Amino acid sequence: MTTDLEKQIQDAQEAVTKQGDTVRSLKASLKDGKAEKAEVDAAISKLAELKIALDEKQKEYEKTTGKVSSQSKEALRAALAGVLERRMFYIPSFKIYGSVAGFYDYGPPGCAIKQNMTQVWRNHFVLEENMLEVECPAVTPEVVLKASGHVDRFTDFMVTDAATGECFRADHLLEGHLEALLEDKKNPPSAEKAREIRELLAGVGELKQDTMAAALQQYDVRAPGTGNALSPPFPFNLMFKTSIGPKGDMVGYLRPETAQGIFVNFRDLLYYNGGKLPFAAAQIGNSYRNEISPRAGLLRVREFTQAEIEHFVNGDDKSHPKFASVADLKPLLYSRELQMGEEKKAAPMSLGEAVSRGIIANETLAYFIGRTWLFFCKVGVNPARMRFRQHLQHEMAHYATDCWDGEVETTYGWVECVGLADRSAYDLKAHTSMSKIDLTAFEKFDTPRMEEVVRVVPNNKELGAVFKKDQKAVKEALEALSEDKAMDMKAKLEAGTPVALTTCEGQSFEIKPGMVEIKKVTEKVTGKTYTPSVIEPSFGIGRIMYCMFEHCYYTREAASKDEVRAVMGFRPVVAPTKATVFPLVQKPALNETAQRISRDLTAAGLSNLIDTTGNTIGKRYARTDEIGVPFAITVDFDSIEGNGSVTLRERDSMAQVRVPQGEVASVIRALVDDRTTWPEVAAKYPAQKATGDDE
Amino acid sequence: MTTDLEKQIQDAQEAVTKQGDTVRSLKASLKDGKAEKAEVDAAISKLAELKIALDEKQKEYEKTTGKVSSQSKEALRAALAGVLERRMFYIPSFKIYGSVAGFYDYGPPGCAIKQNMTQVWRNHFVLEENMLEVECPAVTPEVVLKASGHVDRFTDFMVTDAATGECFRADHLLEGHLEALLEDKKNPPSAEKAREIRELLAGVGELKQDTMAAALQQYDVRAPGTGNALSPPFPFNLMFKTSIGPKGDMVGYLRPETAQGIFVNFRDLLYYNGGKLPFAAAQIGNSYRNEISPRAGLLRVREFTQAEIEHFVNGDDKSHPKFASVADLKPLLYSRELQMGEEKKAAPMSLGEAVSRGIIANETLAYFIGRTWLFFCKVGVNPARMRFRQHLQHEMAHYATDCWDGEVETTYGWVECVGLADRSAYDLKAHTSMSKIDLTAFEKFDTPRMEEVVRVVPNNKELGAVFKKDQKAVKEALEALSEDKAMDMKAKLEAGTPVALTTCEGQSFEIKPGMVEIKKVTEKVTGKTYTPSVIEPSFGIGRIMYCMFEHCYYTREAASKDEVRAVMGFRPVVAPTKATVFPLVQKPALNETAQRISRDLTAAGLSNLIDTTGNTIGKRYARTDEIGVPFAITVDFDSIEGNGSVTLRERDSMAQVRVPQGEVASVIRALVDDRTTWPEVAAKYPAQKATGDDE
Repeated sequence: MTTDLEKQIQDAQEAVTKQGDTVRSLKASLKDGKAEKAEVDAAISKLAELKIALDEKQKEYEKTTGKVSSQSKEALRAALAGVLERRMFYIPSFKIYGSVAGFYDYGPPGCAIKQNMTQVWRNHFVLEENMLEVECPAVTPEVVLKASGHVDRFTDFMVTDAATGECFRADHLLEGHLEALLEDKKNPPSAEKAREIRELLAGVGELKQDTMAAALQQYDVRAPGTGNALSPPFPFNLMFKTSIGPKGDMVGYLRPETAQGIFVNFRDLLYYNGGKLPFAAAQIGNSYRNEISPRAGLLRVREFTQAEIEHFVNGDDKSHPKFASVADLKPLLYSRELQMGEEKKAAPMSLGEAVSRGIIANETLAYFIGRTWLFFCKVGVNPARMRFRQHLQHEMAHYATDCWDGEVETTYGWVECVGLADRSAYDLKAHTSMSKIDLTAFEKFDTPRMEEVVRVVPNNKELGAVFKKDQKAVKEALEALSEDKAMDMKAKLEAGTPVALTTCEGQSFEIKPGMVEIKKVTEKVTGKTYTPSVIEPSFGIGRIMYCMFEHCYYTREAASKDEVRAVMGFRPVVAPTKATVFPLVQKPALNETAQRISRDLTAAGLSNLIDTTGNTIGKRYARTDEIGVPFAITVDFDSIEGNGSVTLRERDSMAQVRVPQGEVASVIRALVDDRTTWPEVAAKYPAQKATGDDE
Repeated sequence: MTTDLEKQIQDAQEAVTKQGDTVRSLKASLKDGKAEKAEVDAAISKLAELKIALDEKQKEYEKTTGKVSSQSKEALRAALAGVLERRMFYIPSFKIYGSVAGFYDYGPPGCAIKQNMTQVWRNHFVLEENMLEVECPAVTPEVVLKASGHVDRFTDFMVTDAATGECFRADHLLEGHLEALLEDKKNPPSAEKAREIRELLAGVGELKQDTMAAALQQYDVRAPGTGNALSPPFPFNLMFKTSIGPKGDMVGYLRPETAQGIFVNFRDLLYYNGGKLPFAAAQIGNSYRNEISPRAGLLRVREFTQAEIEHFVNGDDKSHPKFASVADLKPLLYSRELQMGEEKKAAPMSLGEAVSRGIIANETLAYFIGRTWLFFCKVGVNPARMRFRQHLQHEMAHYATDCWDGEVETTYGWVECVGLADRSAYDLKAHTSMSKIDLTAFEKFDTPRMEEVVRVVPNNKELGAVFKKDQKAVKEALEALSEDKAMDMKAKLEAGTPVALTTCEGQSFEIKPGMVEIKKVTEKVTGKTYTPSVIEPSFGIGRIMYCMFEHCYYTREAASKDEVRAVMGFRPVVAPTKATVFPLVQKPALNETAQRISRDLTAAGLSNLIDTTGNTIGKRYARTDEIGVPFAITVDFDSIEGNGSVTLRERDSMAQVRVPQGEVASVIRALVDDRTTWPEVAAKYPAQKATGDDE
């Protein structure tokens, strides 16, 4: 019953969206003289009928089920998608050729928001922390991504329809199948079975090839649509592959993340920074992942913009000098402990407490969590619908010390927008090992220390005689021994036992007494060489934009009551257009004043639009609300004949004040820069009663 | 003789650069306690010796040859490259893995300059003209680039060393070979031969596969280095190829230009613009070309940032409403006429005159030439070393109406940085033809007109009987006939002659009398449907940056006379760091004041650095001159105890004034925004005598 109704609502929603498009395109044709007025009117009444039908179905659903959530989520998402595509925030790429899944174009307002958001990011992180920003190519030679592990391990499990060859992500199919089993009202699983399914569901992301294969088989998962059998799962590398140079013999990939460009530049960046640590480098740029089945709009795409930070720090001291500035912030933290507990719910906790209780591993990681939370607030994500979720032990790579995902709640559930990871010294060590280039830093002690150190002195003559051409490799391996291993070898050799030694190339040699002298000596040490640890906050700009769209979108009733108006409640700093200027009616004198105000706004660096369509002010407000313009200026006869003031209207409160026209640009500039607030402006200038549809 | 000396100078220059690196790295190690002072001192005196040797060789060269040019060009380029790489403006990518030709990373100052430059571009073009900015993916499905012609024709001719297989660009080899022949002093070519060689040289870029093969054979061009024979030339496609999706059956390429993203969105952009023309769309983004032999640093790379504009306009009227604002500008124009003339030299001419004399094809193209010239001036390219060169007739594509390249003079010769082309309706028609989607605009007449139009009415019954399944294709081809062709067909059919008709799929059919009625009728026409023309200004950001680096770079003698100091004379708006703040000596009170001024600068959006090294002020000025910081603030005891003023020093004039510390941020803000000039500032505030090395 319920699912029938859900389907009907979805169909009704689609019909409304489609008819809306028809009406708009007819209206455009009407202007061009290509359509008749009668045709347009007919389409409009059809649209009204469809809206009523949808509304009735939705009410019926709410009455039957007592829940609003699931279907209003769908409806909200569809309505928002309509606004975003119609207003060209973003649209599928290559539309005239039928589009390609996972690629989107940003149109003018989307492009402006993206720039504003990356600029806020740059000011908030790069300038504030004096980070070293770099820009590296997307095309990357294989060796770099071999070192980072992406060539071997950047894969998803894929299955294919045994008959048609169509490709699917194994984890998506398994998840969908298990969720359907749990929700099956006709044949509900036993309590025990349900628990088993839930456990499997929670761990789908961590299944290995064999356990994934077993699970698919056990639950008889089949190809969607056809119901055919599936191939066994196999790893599919998500990198786009290409070839560099004319010979065709150099394999390259499009980078799957921007981080590697920073790691391979570590040595130059350290030199640039005067050899001093800690320091952070940052990069904003596009990354590429050849997803098996892109879905969910901007949330899983094949080309996307990342903003990544690599904060290099001595692993022995991860305190942060500015930690105090964020210690009192209380973001929602969803720690390992809470995830394993009964309630499974994030809770607010001050970052200071989280560090002192050992919940967040160190101050630097917590500092970036705090800064990230502030960034989300700045760009208009609702902090009450944002949490930081700690990775469970088995989710983390073996080298990682602690990881937290910045997640935002949307109609798609909790969406990971930022990853914050303490990756220890893994990345630099991996590149040192592949490139043979030293990627260490040197910490100079304030005063030299007398320290007992282990010295390994190979006996060159003996090594040469025994190992011949391998002498050099053996010598290097001996010198690279850790102090513990060296002392262990010393003990064995003194007991007359030969010891196996593995070189960095993986060859094994037998070291016998007399080949090496190992001794503890006390010497003056001026400092310490070490491979820095890396703390990595990594942002997905497109995902943050989409989450922000959902949080900013709302509707309100229009004066005419039969329509609902969409509002994009963007924060002024990210809004694509900061202000619109309307002459009240079409008169040259009003137009001239409007033009002058527009030039003032441009000179103040404020993007703006003039709307001289002569539509009612209410209609013009509605249009700019839909693209999220925060401030509207109306020029009326008082502006040119009376005291020279104009009406300034704020989008969300719809409140209006009269501001002298010479001051209006600087007032808006201050509002956009967060140097003043609307309540302050409303207190300073005389209020104006709202007019027209906007009452 | 001369070439021997040239080689020696080059070697000496390289030795100086290398030793300079050694000294710097030793100095860094000295700080870390890894090197001894004596070692560093030895390296420094070695460097001084090498510099003297280089200087002697250069003087000898100038005395022998009487010319400065060629070798000082080399020297200038090498010295500039040293600064750019050492200061990490840009460095070869993937250095720790031995680099890959044609890829560069921008380090912190390069990154900042690039952002500043693209921001100036965006303000100058997008905001000023209300352009519609879009952002499209780099990964592009084959069909788009098939339509644009890139899959078939975006090639360079390649030759390979017959023995080693090494790859070369045929035109580069031929050019180098011909130039060497002309410069051969031992066996100079005859006057007639020299003329033949010069003619061939001028046309190397336009050779076809067979003529290129003939030329290579005629002149016996061989592989550089080995002297081996070469393979015949063959076309090599410059696009990076990849595969989209998991199946591996969808071919994709990295876009070789950003323009196609705009063309495929034309329909949506026109709708977004309310159906009105003309309008312009713009895109800033990365493009990719798998060059056969990348060279010349940033000038020929495999991944680069473009800023492209597509201005859509009715081909019948290419006037521009704002043309008057640029009509009096007099850039250097290098017209076809001047290129074919005796002097072969560009000359200044007002754009108004160029259009009225028909030298530039239309106002819109000339408008963008003017705006481009203004942009170059804004970002610090020397307008006296910039010209617009018109394409010769044979250089242009058959569909192009007129093309001009914005070229900048550098040590590499004239470098093309911008292409400005009137591409007629070619691009939109190509995509219409491939996608079958209508990419036209509709011009509504102010009042409907009575017009004689040609109507083609196919006889469906007859067509169906004769052509059966091809009926539809024939009907469409008939209806798509141009008025001229239709009237021509009418005449022939009336004379009883059958007419051949080719469908858009290329099939040919014979049309006989009675199959179609063609008539002229007079009817009310409300407007006209047309495919818009495109005027395309296309900017290479990296090339402009490099040219700007060369024009901004100069040296001056230091107080100590034995060293020469490099200065990057960046315009303040593009400078990576706008100001540095120096406490005169290391005292807490001075440091605190410096910190406060730094915060003021940051609050005013001005990137800044504090230098508390305690080096002499002269040394600190020299360091910031080298990274092009336009303004330096020195905090001294007068700043904290006296009248509270600070010293403000301008980089190029080295002039200094005393400014109250509370005003210094807003003074610099105004200088950066071009709202005031240094002479104005110098007139307003009391001068300060320069001190230290900077006298």
